[in-house]
Amino acid sequence: MTGHRTNMLLESLKKIVQKTPGAAGSILMGFDGIAVMQYLAPGCEDIDIESAAMEFSFRFIELRKAAQSLDMGDVTDITIKAERQALLCRVLSDDYFVAVLLTDLAHLGRGRWNLRAESADLRADL
Amino acid sequence: MTGHRTNMLLESLKKIVQKTPGAAGSILMGFDGIAVMQYLAPGCEDIDIESAAMEFSFRFIELRKAAQSLDMGDVTDITIKAERQALLCRVLSDDYFVAVLLTDLAHLGRGRWNLRAESADLRADL
Repeated sequence: MTGHRTNMLLESLKKIVQKTPGAAGSILMGFDGIAVMQYLAPGCEDIDIESAAMEFSFRFIELRKAAQSLDMGDVTDITIKAERQALLCRVLSDDYFVAVLLTDLAHLGRGRWNLRAESADLRADL
Repeated sequence: MTGHRTNMLLESLKKIVQKTPGAAGSILMGFDGIAVMQYLAPGCEDIDIESAAMEFSFRFIELRKAAQSLDMGDVTDITIKAERQALLCRVLSDDYFVAVLLTDLAHLGRGRWNLRAESADLRADL
């Protein structure tokens, strides 16, 4: 991966977090659970977003398979909202997804919006 | 289950579908994959929402376990958006969830809103 592409990817991940109040970090990951790149908000450097995304990545494969077997089509977005945190994910390709972790649930809609807005750029830079 | 409670549950499931444009049906199901009750929109009687919800129910257990292990707290909502359909789910208790299947993705937000609005009633009648 060239330096330019790396910068573009990081810029997109950063924008998702900066534009979403309550976002702790964002990550670009393969469905094999291997992280490509991540960005953590200032003060959130201790958050292990990689482990979180990895933990879900294998389960997302199962959800994608289920949706396909049910003729729902390819999965484009998965949202998991829990009591303290929410993980918003967008599928970028067969192999990659981008996720944002929210530690404040008030701006979930904005997070989803920003994730979608940056997806085209992320996809182009993959 | 008494007739009164059955009617109340069905009424809630019906409201979710009727108030959400593009909703094909709604279902109340145990995480063991056993359906309690379902409502299908007129013209959608051939849609097998039970199989769809069942297919996901076991995977939802895995997502709930993952969220707990990551200290995200108990999962309250899961949204799976695919190309042709979306499944919106809300956890009602340790044992039950309610889901609405959308065959038109334009009103996902409204679906989530209605699901939440009826959850209190559904929970009370469980």
